[in-house]
Amino acid sequence: MTSPSSVTQLRADGRRPDELREVRISRGWLDAAEGSVLVEFGRTRVLCAASFTEGVPRWRQGSGEGWVTAEYAMLPRSTSTRSQRESVKGKIGGRTHEISRLIGRSLRAVIDVAALGENTIVLDCDVLQADGGTRTAAITGAYVALADAVTWGVEQGHVRPSRNKPVLTDSVAAVSVGIVDGRPVLDLPYVEDVAAETDMNVVTTGAGNFVEVQGTAEGAPFDRGELDTLLDLAVAGTAQLRDLQAEALARPLESRR
Amino acid sequence: MTSPSSVTQLRADGRRPDELREVRISRGWLDAAEGSVLVEFGRTRVLCAASFTEGVPRWRQGSGEGWVTAEYAMLPRSTSTRSQRESVKGKIGGRTHEISRLIGRSLRAVIDVAALGENTIVLDCDVLQADGGTRTAAITGAYVALADAVTWGVEQGHVRPSRNKPVLTDSVAAVSVGIVDGRPVLDLPYVEDVAAETDMNVVTTGAGNFVEVQGTAEGAPFDRGELDTLLDLAVAGTAQLRDLQAEALARPLESRR
Amino acid sequence: MTSPSSVTQLRADGRRPDELREVRISRGWLDAAEGSVLVEFGRTRVLCAASFTEGVPRWRQGSGEGWVTAEYAMLPRSTSTRSQRESVKGKIGGRTHEISRLIGRSLRAVIDVAALGENTIVLDCDVLQADGGTRTAAITGAYVALADAVTWGVEQGHVRPSRNKPVLTDSVAAVSVGIVDGRPVLDLPYVEDVAAETDMNVVTTGAGNFVEVQGTAEGAPFDRGELDTLLDLAVAGTAQLRDLQAEALARPLESRR
Amino acid sequence: MTSPSSVTQLRADGRRPDELREVRISRGWLDAAEGSVLVEFGRTRVLCAASFTEGVPRWRQGSGEGWVTAEYAMLPRSTSTRSQRESVKGKIGGRTHEISRLIGRSLRAVIDVAALGENTIVLDCDVLQADGGTRTAAITGAYVALADAVTWGVEQGHVRPSRNKPVLTDSVAAVSVGIVDGRPVLDLPYVEDVAAETDMNVVTTGAGNFVEVQGTAEGAPFDRGELDTLLDLAVAGTAQLRDLQAEALARPLESRR
Amino acid sequence: MTSPSSVTQLRADGRRPDELREVRISRGWLDAAEGSVLVEFGRTRVLCAASFTEGVPRWRQGSGEGWVTAEYAMLPRSTSTRSQRESVKGKIGGRTHEISRLIGRSLRAVIDVAALGENTIVLDCDVLQADGGTRTAAITGAYVALADAVTWGVEQGHVRPSRNKPVLTDSVAAVSVGIVDGRPVLDLPYVEDVAAETDMNVVTTGAGNFVEVQGTAEGAPFDRGELDTLLDLAVAGTAQLRDLQAEALARPLESRR
Amino acid sequence: MTSPSSVTQLRADGRRPDELREVRISRGWLDAAEGSVLVEFGRTRVLCAASFTEGVPRWRQGSGEGWVTAEYAMLPRSTSTRSQRESVKGKIGGRTHEISRLIGRSLRAVIDVAALGENTIVLDCDVLQADGGTRTAAITGAYVALADAVTWGVEQGHVRPSRNKPVLTDSVAAVSVGIVDGRPVLDLPYVEDVAAETDMNVVTTGAGNFVEVQGTAEGAPFDRGELDTLLDLAVAGTAQLRDLQAEALARPLESRR
Repeated sequence: MTSPSSVTQLRADGRRPDELREVRISRGWLDAAEGSVLVEFGRTRVLCAASFTEGVPRWRQGSGEGWVTAEYAMLPRSTSTRSQRESVKGKIGGRTHEISRLIGRSLRAVIDVAALGENTIVLDCDVLQADGGTRTAAITGAYVALADAVTWGVEQGHVRPSRNKPVLTDSVAAVSVGIVDGRPVLDLPYVEDVAAETDMNVVTTGAGNFVEVQGTAEGAPFDRGELDTLLDLAVAGTAQLRDLQAEALARPLESRR
Repeated sequence: MTSPSSVTQLRADGRRPDELREVRISRGWLDAAEGSVLVEFGRTRVLCAASFTEGVPRWRQGSGEGWVTAEYAMLPRSTSTRSQRESVKGKIGGRTHEISRLIGRSLRAVIDVAALGENTIVLDCDVLQADGGTRTAAITGAYVALADAVTWGVEQGHVRPSRNKPVLTDSVAAVSVGIVDGRPVLDLPYVEDVAAETDMNVVTTGAGNFVEVQGTAEGAPFDRGELDTLLDLAVAGTAQLRDLQAEALARPLESRR
Repeated sequence: MTSPSSVTQLRADGRRPDELREVRISRGWLDAAEGSVLVEFGRTRVLCAASFTEGVPRWRQGSGEGWVTAEYAMLPRSTSTRSQRESVKGKIGGRTHEISRLIGRSLRAVIDVAALGENTIVLDCDVLQADGGTRTAAITGAYVALADAVTWGVEQGHVRPSRNKPVLTDSVAAVSVGIVDGRPVLDLPYVEDVAAETDMNVVTTGAGNFVEVQGTAEGAPFDRGELDTLLDLAVAGTAQLRDLQAEALARPLESRR
Repeated sequence: MTSPSSVTQLRADGRRPDELREVRISRGWLDAAEGSVLVEFGRTRVLCAASFTEGVPRWRQGSGEGWVTAEYAMLPRSTSTRSQRESVKGKIGGRTHEISRLIGRSLRAVIDVAALGENTIVLDCDVLQADGGTRTAAITGAYVALADAVTWGVEQGHVRPSRNKPVLTDSVAAVSVGIVDGRPVLDLPYVEDVAAETDMNVVTTGAGNFVEVQGTAEGAPFDRGELDTLLDLAVAGTAQLRDLQAEALARPLESRR
Repeated sequence: MTSPSSVTQLRADGRRPDELREVRISRGWLDAAEGSVLVEFGRTRVLCAASFTEGVPRWRQGSGEGWVTAEYAMLPRSTSTRSQRESVKGKIGGRTHEISRLIGRSLRAVIDVAALGENTIVLDCDVLQADGGTRTAAITGAYVALADAVTWGVEQGHVRPSRNKPVLTDSVAAVSVGIVDGRPVLDLPYVEDVAAETDMNVVTTGAGNFVEVQGTAEGAPFDRGELDTLLDLAVAGTAQLRDLQAEALARPLESRR
Repeated sequence: MTSPSSVTQLRADGRRPDELREVRISRGWLDAAEGSVLVEFGRTRVLCAASFTEGVPRWRQGSGEGWVTAEYAMLPRSTSTRSQRESVKGKIGGRTHEISRLIGRSLRAVIDVAALGENTIVLDCDVLQADGGTRTAAITGAYVALADAVTWGVEQGHVRPSRNKPVLTDSVAAVSVGIVDGRPVLDLPYVEDVAAETDMNVVTTGAGNFVEVQGTAEGAPFDRGELDTLLDLAVAGTAQLRDLQAEALARPLESRR
């Protein structure tokens, strides 16, 4: 199905099928947050703020362990036409809930909650501009904001690493893959996303293992061969994102406060 | 990781790792619904009602095409301890939204919406008793209720099949798989579900292609080998469910009205 | 008004004016609930689950006494055309509130709340199929589920009967009566309900005393003679239901767990 | 049970068992409403405003007939301790719903909706001060406000009486009765209401027929004899209220505008 | 802009530009409230109830100081055409919030919260009839209700005045001013309010200092000269209201209970 | 009260009392919005997006005129400690409503709605970082976004200027002033805002006339002299903002799309 020629033909935005959009990770974007990142996957722009707060949800109280959770939202004009605010509607839509939960689960896969004590780190991921891949950009950026908040917590003495393992056991990053015009492609912008027959979001650790695999046939159901190709593309993509996260974290954090 | 011995050792409920629970599909459970099924996966019991209603959502009006959507909910005492009603809370939780959307997408993958005209079929999937796998049972049962509603619609003249394809292009069924105590298993009841390191829900067509693959690492991230084993198990499981659906639909529907 | 001939003429479903529909009371329908009953009044089918939960509402804390409350709801396709879910609307309608409160009051009339300690028994009455008389079926079934939950509570030591009176001081049952085509009838199905000029729901104890009398003129106001006739019919009807409850409770409860 | 002596003994507020509180019906209390009444049953004070509005609820459109509906509410400090506003809670309680529906049904029993054309009269019954019997005062006052709104509608040509019957086929009034300290009493203030073993609200037409009978055993269930005595008391009480309504309506309405 | 002749010409309701409507302040309108006032500015009629309640909002707990807050609302038929209830809409509108907050702030400007101990006084200001200036009437009446509640609190020993200052450090009153047909006027009824180019609400203390100044250009922006004229008018108006408040408080409070 | 020395002494952030913070106005921050501005008043950072949408609110339909409205919101971590999202709370707070309404009114003061046709321009003002003055920054930035959206609308032919006046009749800008430590200051950051005895927000047109004046005594009431001084400061401040708006609009808009 994916002939050699189709693989080499460039996409509408000039990328190769296995090429990420330009990724930018700007740390310390907010003065007050314990960690904050403006992450950009091409035109997609998500502000990730990590808030270190005392206490844990009720069902976790007394466990001695902490919690990491996330809230995802889109500004009304992040999209090409304006969407109504969920605060105005008075309720949060299913898609918002779904993505918030996905981000939270992804981050919890790489943190030692025992080291947090009974504290919660909330990751607010607000989409300022949406051009496809907002949930994968959010996970990728939120990891970096989380890392800065953990560092802050350790410095402040709120977080106490266990003897034998780091607070963050690995990094985590996410990317979308899909089949567009019969060709598997990496990191889909909005125009490819709406045209995709199959759409998959893959979250992996820095070591390359899977945290989440969510594949959906938007058009025709997909077969095992297509699934395998998409997984290969995604694993290669998240490996690149892992390196970009590491580079960003290696730069000194110029405190704005 | 999955040694021969571990594969042959039976599970807590006496099943082999690759064995489904007892599945029962009772059609015509409600007198008024255009299609209705009480589906049971062991103790999990879901009432699926298909309602054929005139009109489509606003964004689809004028398209000449129909729509299929689903609403999933749990009775408050379907679970081992009572849960609060979402109607009393005044809002629908993220999990409920997520599953409702999954059921709707799964069914839309196998229906020719053009044949429906501007009509909507709503699948209400209410969990009467929950013992793991409620969403996969719901999809499996909802397909059968949908098939009966389509037959009703054709008989009434509301549904007009296209010349060259059936209204339902294939069947659709779903099953859960997971890694429990290091061993991949099929169709997890609640006790296995909470113990699973990895949890995956797979939706396939009767032809064995994928409609949805949703895998989540609850504990340690999973590698490519584990993912492949789980997909194999799931595909074999949904093939059995497809046959059970076909058998159920082959029986005469004793109208209660 | 009610001539001898009109009394002997049969109803649309073949019943005499003073005849109940076929009543079935199936105990132990759910594995986990402390008491559960599927009650059927003809085609009306209500699942009643009794949940024994620790604690009481805030205004009752420190009293040493327990509480019994109820929540009534209808599945969206229990009716002949689909109704919207109250969880989706985001609010509970007046009729739902009214019936939930009626069920709770009716059950509290026959229980010694002091024996419960500071525990609450919640009765969830979910209408799976509605064909008139759902509130009266719910009360009749909920009493049986409550009785099983009380037995469970006594066995577990959570409920301690007072020396001089039983935990359940009497049974309670309910039935609808109404004037249809100028003739008083018992236990109205939907078609009679919509045609009734006067509609009354009567809740009595096993001893035949009144717990609730709710009569409404849907068409012309009713006079004292009609009121008396309806009360006679209702009292005779609930006496039969009391016997059916006793028979159901006399059968051994085959635990499903 | 009710010995002659107990009947002659006066109540805490000096009334005989079969005596109403002082009732005042002040018409034209608002300048803008098509009908408005401040009704007082002793200290209970309810402002009833009738609003004549074009159009009917959707399910009635095209019928050519009108509608009458009611909304009941209590000011937060109408009660002895402050209650939270339902607008602040964001939802309307069951009791409020129940009473609003009762008022609406009671008024609809005496109006020829065909004469209204496709118009709706909304009765807003706001309790300014509550001392028991707010729902019965509301019905009694709302009838008078409705009568003024109908007169206004006829004068304006919006309401066209049918040839052979008046727009208002009769009057309607309501009163509470109950058994307090073993003695049946009429028109209960708050202190009697909380002490009542049985509590009944009765709505009758001017001709003395029943529109609603709602009796509830708050303590011990009540027998047929008690029920009969309460009904007698109530019928006598509403007959007096009917006369007071007629007197009020016979006075000229001094327009404030 | 405001020629001598325009100042002397009377308004539609016969008032001079700098003249208040007839103001009535009736104390003790409710039996149960710790303070209550029916305040009338012409046809505008607001019921102000002061409730003395134990405890303070969470963020103030442990401070040893009390709190004063207000809730403003309009009855649905207080206006010339009926408005929907906010409890029915399920949410409180921006205007309601705004005015509630304004009333609360205005009252807090003149009370020594330390003297209250950890108690809260809630001022419910319910508009029974609206003819412009409801917020200013509410503030003016609420101050009087507050004064009565403070007196009650002192008598009961719940409020302990500080040694060197009274609990109420001054009085507070409010009035509207505006420019209508190019002429500055005081205390606008509805017809002037909708015609005003500029609309201003001014809250002052008895000593004549400003607590709130809220001016809005409804039509053309206003210049400094107009602003000064409006402020002069308002200060003179609130001085009269202060005297009327003092007179009302000087009359004995005939307790209704 | 404001001695010469106090005026010359610098503020905590090094500014003179009558000095604005550094103001930055970045146009075209979003690719899709018809107008968009990132406005910064020091650390306060607000994203203003203007969306041109067809149609007007119901009450304006058929008027042939357009509408301008605004929605203000704060990101949860825009503040120094995280606030809960209003979408999660399920309702919008009073402060949010108040500010949204203020922004809308301010912008409507300078636009010829007849020129818009029956179209609405929505201004979304989302606070990314809050350090005092968010509402005044929002108004100042929103005007620039509105101007770009109007230009777009004229270019597209959706907006048709009247013959004798421009679509935007003037510019509009806002600033906060207050009395801090007895000294009147301009453009308060958060630390000054919480310390202010009096807080005032002033909105003026480019010509220097008032659109809104909102002054509140947070501590002691203020006298006429203080009010005058604050108004002078504010008028001088908004004049500078008007020039900065004009400069920003004079720069070419580098389209990102």
